[in-house]
Amino acid sequence: MLSVTCIAPVNIAVIKYWGKRDEDLILPLNDSVSATLSTDHLCTKTTITTCESFAENKIILNGKEESFDNPRLLRCLEEIKKRAKASNKCKPEILKWNVHVKTENNFPTAAGLASSASGYACLVYTLACLYGIENEEISSIARQGSGSACRSLHSGFVQWQKGEHPDGSDSVAVQLVPHDFWPEMRIIVLVVNDARKKTSSTGGMSTSVKTSKLLKYRVEECVPKHTKDLVEALNKKDFETFGKITMQDSNQFHAVCLDTYPPCVYMNDISFAVVNMVHQFNALKKEVKVAYTFDAGPNACLYLLEKDVPEVLAVVNKVFPNDKLGDPEYIKGIAVDLSELPEAQAEFTASGNNLLKYIINTKVGEGPKRID
Amino acid sequence: MLSVTCIAPVNIAVIKYWGKRDEDLILPLNDSVSATLSTDHLCTKTTITTCESFAENKIILNGKEESFDNPRLLRCLEEIKKRAKASNKCKPEILKWNVHVKTENNFPTAAGLASSASGYACLVYTLACLYGIENEEISSIARQGSGSACRSLHSGFVQWQKGEHPDGSDSVAVQLVPHDFWPEMRIIVLVVNDARKKTSSTGGMSTSVKTSKLLKYRVEECVPKHTKDLVEALNKKDFETFGKITMQDSNQFHAVCLDTYPPCVYMNDISFAVVNMVHQFNALKKEVKVAYTFDAGPNACLYLLEKDVPEVLAVVNKVFPNDKLGDPEYIKGIAVDLSELPEAQAEFTASGNNLLKYIINTKVGEGPKRID
Repeated sequence: MLSVTCIAPVNIAVIKYWGKRDEDLILPLNDSVSATLSTDHLCTKTTITTCESFAENKIILNGKEESFDNPRLLRCLEEIKKRAKASNKCKPEILKWNVHVKTENNFPTAAGLASSASGYACLVYTLACLYGIENEEISSIARQGSGSACRSLHSGFVQWQKGEHPDGSDSVAVQLVPHDFWPEMRIIVLVVNDARKKTSSTGGMSTSVKTSKLLKYRVEECVPKHTKDLVEALNKKDFETFGKITMQDSNQFHAVCLDTYPPCVYMNDISFAVVNMVHQFNALKKEVKVAYTFDAGPNACLYLLEKDVPEVLAVVNKVFPNDKLGDPEYIKGIAVDLSELPEAQAEFTASGNNLLKYIINTKVGEGPKRID
Repeated sequence: MLSVTCIAPVNIAVIKYWGKRDEDLILPLNDSVSATLSTDHLCTKTTITTCESFAENKIILNGKEESFDNPRLLRCLEEIKKRAKASNKCKPEILKWNVHVKTENNFPTAAGLASSASGYACLVYTLACLYGIENEEISSIARQGSGSACRSLHSGFVQWQKGEHPDGSDSVAVQLVPHDFWPEMRIIVLVVNDARKKTSSTGGMSTSVKTSKLLKYRVEECVPKHTKDLVEALNKKDFETFGKITMQDSNQFHAVCLDTYPPCVYMNDISFAVVNMVHQFNALKKEVKVAYTFDAGPNACLYLLEKDVPEVLAVVNKVFPNDKLGDPEYIKGIAVDLSELPEAQAEFTASGNNLLKYIINTKVGEGPKRID
């Protein structure tokens, strides 16, 4: 019997992935860039055990047994085994044994944070450790579980190169800079209350490719420029440019969602209140101090530098007053001393009470890790 | 002393105008198409008096005196006088007299309906009547007051041709079909409750032209095709195509607004609840029975055929329950017998109470008219 336990991080894109050129292999229409978030605050933990006596494959997700008969899950297992066989790092008979997978997130699934990225990254990394191939290029396998999962296999800032080959072999994630390259970078996640039914991102993406005329233009003309400029800004630690492109790319992704027929709408009035707050703050400061980005859901991720965290949190608390402020579960992650926050400027007014579920104050972090 | 009183209609675009190629002359980047709404339910009424003894120009808007020192207002007056002088339809000394303008809307300004279109159309048409040139091409003058005002000078469905000349002389509105061409067409305006601050459309449009990369593509590649297909559908009375393009063009316009930096956000959660309701209704009916369109504000305009009004209103009342239902001021316009509405399908559920301010049930109508 073999057993391995690993953790893998969540990642938040600053250049968004939206649209596949191959639905089956999960090959994207454009490059994307993300930051890997610290596993101290957000991660998936997965234990995989394999044993000759296991009668079948099993998966337990957050305490609940799910069907293993899931094509993406099966594909990841199969591809890792194929790679392990070719590498000779693992005895062939072990590859014939079934596996038991136990996986859980240290954050509520209800948070609407991309748990499939950390989930598939953790699955593939843990399997790779189990079969001794964790040092090989496995992001192209994680990609086949959930596209953005490939980006969670590296620390720091990561680029998912779309690749050119039809077999997807060059559609891989590469590290741009390590997690401690820009140590002042912070990420604050504002988890919003939302009553709306979720639109699946897989479905929305596929409808966008079929119906949005703007998507084609974004993919061909806009994203390559956004990516180039953002990577340059990252290397120069130019927050002004980094932040501006991050916001523009997020807005353009949601514009393409709206140009879809029927439209996919992921942001809500609370999301747009965050957008307004950020632009108002930056206008007041006469520079881009904080940038928002939104995935396929209403939660905001703010990128900012450590020195601006107290002032931004003060503004967040003024614009989004919450009865739970002071409760240690309301602002999670890196500890914040509320008594040390400055007073928010008079220009900011409350958008409404209790519009946020909670806040996660975190930073750029490391990739997956074996922890057993 | 001369005095003339006229009314002019509101128009609601189905192919949207967004972006100027000349800010001063108000020349658009693309053609747009609208329906002129019946003046029975929505109109501006303007009385203009001119007299040798008037010491200055004056304007009273909805009972309140406003400054006449408004470049757009002055330009309209000046251009009409220039034209009247050239036409010799008016004694030259009359053109030297000052004017008193009294103008009011028969709908609340708070409605967020485009009152500048009916307002400038009425101003220019009333001035034209005053100076005897009401049969000339005056849409290019109304355009210089407020772009979309040029479309309110005709009845039925109207196309504002963007034109090519730098002086704007060919940027005029033309009638596509008269108001009784498709007599079954109905328009239901859902006026929503909205707490958000308004973004001016002039400002938003100008920022879009400067910052949205998608706008250029929309203007060059998408709108010409939308316009051609919509005009064809209109001539064939093909509601399915007419409705689909109307929704796609509205969504694409709002997508461009979102792609603007900082983004312009005009639709809110209530608007998107209308979008969902419409797509759900059409999916259930397996055809496009009703189409939404949104201007630079959260109010929805629904286009539909007369036969579907009762069922659509039943669904609207179920999705947007309102304490004022039954109050004659809640559903304005063409009378609706609530007791004759069918029961809405069980699939529809309430989005929340009292999300709509009121509803206007109207139809395609005639152009400006002298009424004194």
